[in-house]
Amino acid sequence: MTAPAHPFDAAIALRAETPNRWHGRTSDDYWNMVSPYGGVTAGAMMQAMLDHPERSGTPLAFTLSFLAPIQAGDYVIETELVRANRNSQHWAIRLLQAGRVLAQAIAICAQRRETWSLVEAAPPEVPPADQCEPAPNRGTSEFLRRYEFRIVRGKPFAENSDSVSHVWVADNPPRPLDFASLTALCDSFLPRIFLRRAEFVPIGTVSINIYFHAGEEVLIRQGAAPLLAVAQAQAFSDGHFDHHGHVWSTNGELLATTQQLVWYKE
Amino acid sequence: MTAPAHPFDAAIALRAETPNRWHGRTSDDYWNMVSPYGGVTAGAMMQAMLDHPERSGTPLAFTLSFLAPIQAGDYVIETELVRANRNSQHWAIRLLQAGRVLAQAIAICAQRRETWSLVEAAPPEVPPADQCEPAPNRGTSEFLRRYEFRIVRGKPFAENSDSVSHVWVADNPPRPLDFASLTALCDSFLPRIFLRRAEFVPIGTVSINIYFHAGEEVLIRQGAAPLLAVAQAQAFSDGHFDHHGHVWSTNGELLATTQQLVWYKE
Repeated sequence: MTAPAHPFDAAIALRAETPNRWHGRTSDDYWNMVSPYGGVTAGAMMQAMLDHPERSGTPLAFTLSFLAPIQAGDYVIETELVRANRNSQHWAIRLLQAGRVLAQAIAICAQRRETWSLVEAAPPEVPPADQCEPAPNRGTSEFLRRYEFRIVRGKPFAENSDSVSHVWVADNPPRPLDFASLTALCDSFLPRIFLRRAEFVPIGTVSINIYFHAGEEVLIRQGAAPLLAVAQAQAFSDGHFDHHGHVWSTNGELLATTQQLVWYKE
Repeated sequence: MTAPAHPFDAAIALRAETPNRWHGRTSDDYWNMVSPYGGVTAGAMMQAMLDHPERSGTPLAFTLSFLAPIQAGDYVIETELVRANRNSQHWAIRLLQAGRVLAQAIAICAQRRETWSLVEAAPPEVPPADQCEPAPNRGTSEFLRRYEFRIVRGKPFAENSDSVSHVWVADNPPRPLDFASLTALCDSFLPRIFLRRAEFVPIGTVSINIYFHAGEEVLIRQGAAPLLAVAQAQAFSDGHFDHHGHVWSTNGELLATTQQLVWYKE
């Protein structure tokens, strides 16, 4: 008997029709209110690039825009290696349903090299994850059950004086970290508007940008332990807000920096 | 007699062959060491989208990757309106020479709407631009003469204890701000590695991400006055570093947040 796949692996599973055309299917396990959780869409598009036979190096930058809601059912991912240099690759990735593009990404893979290094950002001082209580499930969307959140700072719908949050986050059930799941986790931040306003407002992620600051061996060392997610908005204006976030390993290594632009209704 | 065009307008001038295919030419005025200043390339690609007959709304997000050095001479920009929604548009933009893609971007335009708004970020307290001395020209690249920098904090090659910089920056000669020049200005930040290391290191911008937080009327009100550019690196590791920056109007309005990923040699 084979162990059943982790729901994340099932959700991002792809079948190659050609090296540049992949077939996938939305997952009920990661369903959000009207379409799949954006993180799992991002993870599937990342995975298509990672699985491409010509891919070399590891992800360095990944930027994804959501063009329109993805419907439940089958989708196609198209990958294009736009340019391969000696140490880096540039990709364009699109997700389509019925021939219509619903998400588009550009991404860079690169060989990581030994150089002078210095991490200038620092993680906030927080209690270890096992001393923090998992947040009760907010229950509004199935995908929220696929993550365990331990909120250290930044309670939703509390009209906080800033939008800073510190949250330990892990796949649920636990799953060893890789670039696809780290990509997905970069969309698991609570929408910043819920930290500044008491009432629920309809929102939707429009664009997400991720820079990866760690190589594969750091992700493998992290395993399935909780990651520390830190984020803050810069501005809410004219129907969109942004955030700037850091994702830290359990031991305080910077894994990714990420930005996001989110539409809100009023 | 017509006044001669501003060098920036000459540098980003495009001729439409079809609505989706534009011809431009690199500018000696914005030449960097081995290729055009990345900001002027970004500005030209932004301008192609802005000039497109189907464009509606104003820029909201713009992400550009540099794939390989652009040579002096002619180039082609291809624009694709990937999807138009009621209030937003999604674009893909590529720059080519001799049929090879050398830069690729994805971008979003949107209608700005009156909503609840709140700017959470704050500009640093700095003296007004006219009380700060323009930096002497570093002289290494022609494009540096096209900007006037007044460095309030963050001297290059000084091994500072952090990479934070506060700089008043303006087009030189002065030019009224628009989305193309704001895009270009978002690449005018001093490479962060020069703020942490005493010696020159070869560097090159790999990717730049911009979120626009202001509409056209704010840019028009800003005119040609200096902008306050604030940035800090998160990490220098394995051959790449990033920065996270803010661009403020003279009066302290947040115009743009921007991130950048930069390759460095050692």
